[in-house]
Amino acid sequence: MDRDKRVTTHAALVSRAFGAKGIYISPPDKGIEKTIKGVNERFGGSFQVESIDKWHTLLNSWKGVIVHLTMYGIPLWEVKGQIKKEEEDLLVVIGATKVPIEVYLKANYNVAIYNQPHSEISALAIFLHDVFPEKAIKENYNGKLKIIPKEKGKMVVENQYL
Amino acid sequence: MDRDKRVTTHAALVSRAFGAKGIYISPPDKGIEKTIKGVNERFGGSFQVESIDKWHTLLNSWKGVIVHLTMYGIPLWEVKGQIKKEEEDLLVVIGATKVPIEVYLKANYNVAIYNQPHSEISALAIFLHDVFPEKAIKENYNGKLKIIPKEKGKMVVENQYL
Repeated sequence: MDRDKRVTTHAALVSRAFGAKGIYISPPDKGIEKTIKGVNERFGGSFQVESIDKWHTLLNSWKGVIVHLTMYGIPLWEVKGQIKKEEEDLLVVIGATKVPIEVYLKANYNVAIYNQPHSEISALAIFLHDVFPEKAIKENYNGKLKIIPKEKGKMVVENQYL
Repeated sequence: MDRDKRVTTHAALVSRAFGAKGIYISPPDKGIEKTIKGVNERFGGSFQVESIDKWHTLLNSWKGVIVHLTMYGIPLWEVKGQIKKEEEDLLVVIGATKVPIEVYLKANYNVAIYNQPHSEISALAIFLHDVFPEKAIKENYNGKLKIIPKEKGKMVVENQYL
């Protein structure tokens, strides 16, 4: 859905860091694709980014379960157990302010992280963190760069020296 | 710190929904202040927004504990217990891409939600959600609007009819 580039980039980075296999971006945005591929290259992993012209087509042809994150939905804790079982083919949809009613109808679950306005980025992060905590990238893997946790300042190691 | 308006608005909404008392925005942005006050008016609560010219001054004069969220920091789970005790005067700092070293040095805790790039919005949401789950706005309160959780579509009730 039509969205701010910066917000979409954040959504893609959240998807990657919290363990999703990939993200579909609509409308297509080659700039964001490039940014995310650059992050994979530096920090590792095989997170996929794909631009799509028509999100309707994706939703209509999706074989698995569709979850739409919206403040109007039912609380996450009510459906978390059911959703967790569907992880193989799960599509999580987030949109900008005005999400067409079609998305609400097509989704198997319209899920709210509290019924208050916040952010599609935070909704996605909390959803992935709560439902699939085991999937998050807790270790750096095979990237050129590895961040070493540090109390003050930054420590980044280039993989070739490890 | 100098940031994208949309991203800052999301950060403010996350702070409100996940139970912070208020947010300081630097550089000042009257537009964002107005947006957030409008959300308070519609959805309730007394979340505070304050624009500040110099974030250095705020950090230097802060009496309580300062937490800076950064992918370079130490894992949240290591310091969560300690930080939870400091809730009365806790200042959580998030910044855009280039955060000055001064912030790392001034912070009592530099905390990472995984050592991977994601988003300051998701970092803030996960931090507040994990450390202070009891503070989130789980009930709508005294706003003109109240969202009723719904499986499909939207249901919003105006408070006067409740």
